[in-house]
Amino acid sequence: MKNNMKINHEAVLHIPLSNYAFANSEHRLTIRIRTKKDNVSACTLYYGDRACPVTPVVFEEIQMEIKARDEFFDYYEATFETPYTRVCYYFKLQNEGEWTYYYSERFSNELAILYFERNIMEERSEYYQYPYILRNEIPDVPAWFKKAVVYNIFPDSFVGEESGSLTQPKEVVLENGKVCRSRLGGTLKEVIKNLDYIQALGVNCIYFNPIFAAGEYHKYDTIDYYHIDPCFGTNEEFKHLVEEIHKREMKIIIDGVFNHCSWEFFAFEDVMEKGENSKYIDWFYDLKFPVCRPQSEKEKPGYACFAYEPKMPKLNTSNEEVQKYFANVGTYWIREYQIDGWRLDVANEIDRIFWRKFREAVKKENKEAILIGEVWENAESWLRGDIFDSTMNYEFRRICRDHIIGDNKNAITAAKQLEQMRLRYPTNLVNGQLNLLDSHDVPRFLSLCRGELGKWKLACILLMLFPGVPSLFYGDEQAICGMKEHEYRNPMVWNQNPQLYEFVQKIIEIRKEYIEKDTSYEVLWKETDERVLTFVRDGRKGRLFVSLNVSEMDQEWNRGDKNMILASTENEELLEAMGYKLYL
Amino acid sequence: MKNNMKINHEAVLHIPLSNYAFANSEHRLTIRIRTKKDNVSACTLYYGDRACPVTPVVFEEIQMEIKARDEFFDYYEATFETPYTRVCYYFKLQNEGEWTYYYSERFSNELAILYFERNIMEERSEYYQYPYILRNEIPDVPAWFKKAVVYNIFPDSFVGEESGSLTQPKEVVLENGKVCRSRLGGTLKEVIKNLDYIQALGVNCIYFNPIFAAGEYHKYDTIDYYHIDPCFGTNEEFKHLVEEIHKREMKIIIDGVFNHCSWEFFAFEDVMEKGENSKYIDWFYDLKFPVCRPQSEKEKPGYACFAYEPKMPKLNTSNEEVQKYFANVGTYWIREYQIDGWRLDVANEIDRIFWRKFREAVKKENKEAILIGEVWENAESWLRGDIFDSTMNYEFRRICRDHIIGDNKNAITAAKQLEQMRLRYPTNLVNGQLNLLDSHDVPRFLSLCRGELGKWKLACILLMLFPGVPSLFYGDEQAICGMKEHEYRNPMVWNQNPQLYEFVQKIIEIRKEYIEKDTSYEVLWKETDERVLTFVRDGRKGRLFVSLNVSEMDQEWNRGDKNMILASTENEELLEAMGYKLYL
Repeated sequence: MKNNMKINHEAVLHIPLSNYAFANSEHRLTIRIRTKKDNVSACTLYYGDRACPVTPVVFEEIQMEIKARDEFFDYYEATFETPYTRVCYYFKLQNEGEWTYYYSERFSNELAILYFERNIMEERSEYYQYPYILRNEIPDVPAWFKKAVVYNIFPDSFVGEESGSLTQPKEVVLENGKVCRSRLGGTLKEVIKNLDYIQALGVNCIYFNPIFAAGEYHKYDTIDYYHIDPCFGTNEEFKHLVEEIHKREMKIIIDGVFNHCSWEFFAFEDVMEKGENSKYIDWFYDLKFPVCRPQSEKEKPGYACFAYEPKMPKLNTSNEEVQKYFANVGTYWIREYQIDGWRLDVANEIDRIFWRKFREAVKKENKEAILIGEVWENAESWLRGDIFDSTMNYEFRRICRDHIIGDNKNAITAAKQLEQMRLRYPTNLVNGQLNLLDSHDVPRFLSLCRGELGKWKLACILLMLFPGVPSLFYGDEQAICGMKEHEYRNPMVWNQNPQLYEFVQKIIEIRKEYIEKDTSYEVLWKETDERVLTFVRDGRKGRLFVSLNVSEMDQEWNRGDKNMILASTENEELLEAMGYKLYL
Repeated sequence: MKNNMKINHEAVLHIPLSNYAFANSEHRLTIRIRTKKDNVSACTLYYGDRACPVTPVVFEEIQMEIKARDEFFDYYEATFETPYTRVCYYFKLQNEGEWTYYYSERFSNELAILYFERNIMEERSEYYQYPYILRNEIPDVPAWFKKAVVYNIFPDSFVGEESGSLTQPKEVVLENGKVCRSRLGGTLKEVIKNLDYIQALGVNCIYFNPIFAAGEYHKYDTIDYYHIDPCFGTNEEFKHLVEEIHKREMKIIIDGVFNHCSWEFFAFEDVMEKGENSKYIDWFYDLKFPVCRPQSEKEKPGYACFAYEPKMPKLNTSNEEVQKYFANVGTYWIREYQIDGWRLDVANEIDRIFWRKFREAVKKENKEAILIGEVWENAESWLRGDIFDSTMNYEFRRICRDHIIGDNKNAITAAKQLEQMRLRYPTNLVNGQLNLLDSHDVPRFLSLCRGELGKWKLACILLMLFPGVPSLFYGDEQAICGMKEHEYRNPMVWNQNPQLYEFVQKIIEIRKEYIEKDTSYEVLWKETDERVLTFVRDGRKGRLFVSLNVSEMDQEWNRGDKNMILASTENEELLEAMGYKLYL
């Protein structure tokens, strides 16, 4: 197949200082190169000391291996201990017919050595460079987070079991007359009451959607960044909640909404009141004076907003005072309430300098605090070590949506897309991605499955056993459904589906048993076909095989391996009977 | 040719928030996509408002154009005014046989709209995103710098014309007994004396290699960051120099060496003296106590160094005090001496947090100050707006070396490699790259040309008329040669080659007349063959055609256009006679 084939040049890709070349630790590098699928028979990495005292540089040679494949490409990879902190490198690509070096984005049969009269000129800067493995630039996330299993609570929905049927809107008036609204009446007390339930699921980290005083029930229009919304409880109760969470050796992450505020936020009110004389006019964008609330839905607001929502004026996060104000908010809740991290709303519309200062302040307060950005798309540009540790991984959900419940589902395509996703960031960061099926912003995955629990369970197995940190949206474990916003934020229920709860519990248990922070992941292509995706996680506790049958068709399960999870979507009965047969 | 051809998927490349998608101003975006050469017959960009209040998003359509080609690829580009600050977009690729959408790194014949029961689910986050065009994140360089023509002075070499033959080493002992050495005896006074000479060349910016007190003649081993080296002059004389430069409406950039210092730098001496009790132990790397100077060449130093040079201990630029110390150095020379910017040595081995703080401090002192990093390789990762404005562009030199003087020179390949280089950063940044043929770190280009002035002049024309900021190394205009370090840092001469001086003068004049900051650059492929590279710069002053004959062969020049520069390397006579025939 590879005979007489030319090396395809168009497909070759290597990007220095990216997911194609990163440090795992101070002396350990991963270098990757992409080639056209089945086009290259061998790929060799040559690496040397950029500062090598002799000329030409002494290079060492490593045979790279194909560590991932997708529809169009093979991804060769070498991970190795380097004695040098300053590394230069180049590649040699071979197939039956020819060979070429590759460096500086050029193909050549010569190295960067020129002979000029009696001089040897080595232009070593023309090789690819890993200029210096700087200790504090190694892409990584706090160790605890890589072991986290996250439970995401939308606070308004956490109403008491007994009062489930009584859920109704409420309003609490703050001292200054501003009104905080609630839709269902969830409270922090109710969360505290149910911590045992949550912990028993196997979860060890809770992420709360916003809890600060705000106008609307969803609390994304913050009025006061220093107070818990009175509909949910008090600052004291929150302190108690954090203590109770920590007592259980769980962690807590809260939601920071800093892209915009409520039009009742003090600074915006000051602008409305004092106009151009307000000292906060540079805290907002595109102000047209006098700044007023629009009087009708048709009237365009005279200020920039989150989307076009006049109740949520956009903050000018390029302003230094705004940066300081929110860096203080960031540290306050860590210092005074011991939260373990922030999930950061609309993160991709905010100034990077804002985030860098926020990060610096937060990490100084607690190096182990986690920062998770809300970036739905490829977040590479926020995951370079200077901004976030992690982002919400909606791509994980998309792949599950298309290939576990879609009309064109195909396990091979799913496997390839998962590979693409798995390779898009350095490995340490992939292991810290917040993978999810559900959040407060999307229809419940179970609803997309049209209620078919078998499919949901398949997706859940993948969520729990794929590299990254799984995040469950409250009630997923009780088969809560919902297509529209109010529906997928429905009240929490506790006893709707005890079997499902046990299923989730079991799969989290398996995760905790087999998957550690450096457990490898490998697709078994021979065991993967259009119906079945098979991968293996190889860790210190042994090899865990996972086979997921995404098709509706019956599937002969004939593997006799140990430590194997087989799961099928065919129907719930089959899944019960054998689908998640766990040979443990 | 394009009939019945499949769209080649492997070649397609688009990277969000990169040189493939950047803002030129608050309402102007450039979007690019790479396709296999001659493979696609049309490429359409669809862009819309990420926050569009109606579903599905209303998209506008732009026909993209091929704006660059290289050996393997066509680069389609669209630059357009956007009414939205939050943009989502996707591509449609077509050829005679088929068409496909492209977004999320996937090929599809469907948009990101799902119909689910009676719901339309638009997953608009799956399109490519330009999340928010933030004012202060638009990649750009200070306006004055884009109009700069730089003259690079290696201070030790600037010895008086009359004393040219008298150049000899000198030593000056500092108050504290430390010795500063000089090789040739250059001084700031000598520079002042020759400012008219420099200005008459057309240069409007001088970049000095290091001038601070240091041990060796090259001054890259800084002892004192707050004092001019006594071999060169005094702080007062420097102040006078800056005044004289500014009086001539020229700018001055100095060299900051912050990756390492001299082993006589106070902090390192403190470490050697006090050992583990020194408060500076975290200013350095990998210290082995007691910290001593190695006693022989073979002895490995007990501390990290620049390369393996024990006289230059590496600074720990991750240390906050170090960051503050050098941010103060950065602002001191701007505030007290009104320098216009910094060229930053070994920039790619220094902590990015160090650079961000340095940048913040410097830009606060003077927003217009320029920061140029020494990064020889592709510097994309330092040119994202948070670190440098510009970098030293050694790739420019390489292309000239390979295709104006190399054994395999080929004008088509040169044109393609120049295109690749021109596209590797956002346009504003390409226009601010410090292009160079020579520096204090490489053999004189004229020596590589084996003294053939014709070739050097060709390269010089390209240097002056290609997008970017040209940098001449002192004496290039006088045909100074040199292969080895001491040779290419030879003493300055003033009257060695008045014809060459005039040539440079003339070409700089043409540059200033025709090239403004937004003057376009386009290769004329029909006018380009293996011998001749032809491009056009189209600006407000008209169209400037440039044809460079890189071959040794004679070439029929038969273009009658106005505003045309023809240049040939064939021999100097031809160049004199017609090579730089300037039909102006």
